[in-house]
Amino acid sequence: MATAQKLPRLVNGVRVDDLFNTIDAIKATPSIAKFNFRIKNQWQGASQNRSTVNTFHGAGRELSRKQPFLLEADEPAALLGKDEAANPVEHLLHALAACITTSMVYHAAARGIEIQAVESSFEGDIDLHGFFDLDKSVRKGYQGIRVNFKLKADAPDDKLQEIVELGTGHSPVFDSLTNGVPVSVTAQRM
Amino acid sequence: MATAQKLPRLVNGVRVDDLFNTIDAIKATPSIAKFNFRIKNQWQGASQNRSTVNTFHGAGRELSRKQPFLLEADEPAALLGKDEAANPVEHLLHALAACITTSMVYHAAARGIEIQAVESSFEGDIDLHGFFDLDKSVRKGYQGIRVNFKLKADAPDDKLQEIVELGTGHSPVFDSLTNGVPVSVTAQRM
Repeated sequence: MATAQKLPRLVNGVRVDDLFNTIDAIKATPSIAKFNFRIKNQWQGASQNRSTVNTFHGAGRELSRKQPFLLEADEPAALLGKDEAANPVEHLLHALAACITTSMVYHAAARGIEIQAVESSFEGDIDLHGFFDLDKSVRKGYQGIRVNFKLKADAPDDKLQEIVELGTGHSPVFDSLTNGVPVSVTAQRM
Repeated sequence: MATAQKLPRLVNGVRVDDLFNTIDAIKATPSIAKFNFRIKNQWQGASQNRSTVNTFHGAGRELSRKQPFLLEADEPAALLGKDEAANPVEHLLHALAACITTSMVYHAAARGIEIQAVESSFEGDIDLHGFFDLDKSVRKGYQGIRVNFKLKADAPDDKLQEIVELGTGHSPVFDSLTNGVPVSVTAQRM
């Protein structure tokens, strides 16, 4: 049965053996858990700009993609843009949705919980009195974000919330956004 | 000179008259400042998922795009993915970069500050001891994010940091990420 043993055990499409091998490798060499993610952004004029995603540091070494990923940003006409791409606060919702989903799927896989389908909707409120300095009591950012997950999974109804909490409880973006992150900024002449 | 007066005044590519008209409209009808942004996300299996961006509420009405924008997410092989798209924490950096840049460009335009070029780099650290529950003292999210802006602008060196602070000081994503946002999550069966 040597051949069968070599097949990776897939749960939710995740190679669970690789997942546990990664955890074992971190236990053996803690420094490989330190990741550094990066992007470069270039202004394209007015409401448009573009990020390039390529290299990162992780697993103890510098890594890069086969090809860089380009991420675009624009604003709709109601926010003085050309509406050629999602806007920054929509990209933030995507980052949050993607991270909760992947974190949920990975941690469910590690526990042997099979998930067949996941759909989610995210919405958040922003009052432009903040952005335009019209009311100092109104924040610039999201006042609140509401999330709904729909799951198809081999679990009783009362376990569905727990499965989603595997996502929110482990997601780097959920933690970053709900608890805040220190951001330092420098500026120089080009 | 009627024709010349009809031309919008462009600063940094931004129609400054439209910007001030928007502010005046909000002062006249405060409720139009309330925006609601949304995405829908669908899991594609394992490390991959996709968000659809289309409708939003703002300027007192429901609005939608000419066509929906699709945003992809994946993980690199080092994080058990197929590396076909930027990962969620990279999307978060893009949202932050895009928002600071647009906020800076708009608020500089409102003040008549001409900017010729903007490039920025963003990086952040994540220790997977958090994600994998290997050390409860390590957070799941970014431990810190470092940002550098390079500007080409008609301003003395000591004003460059102030111009960038027009961005960080008004950016909805910068505020959301540095100060945190309440996120409520519900789950249901599909």
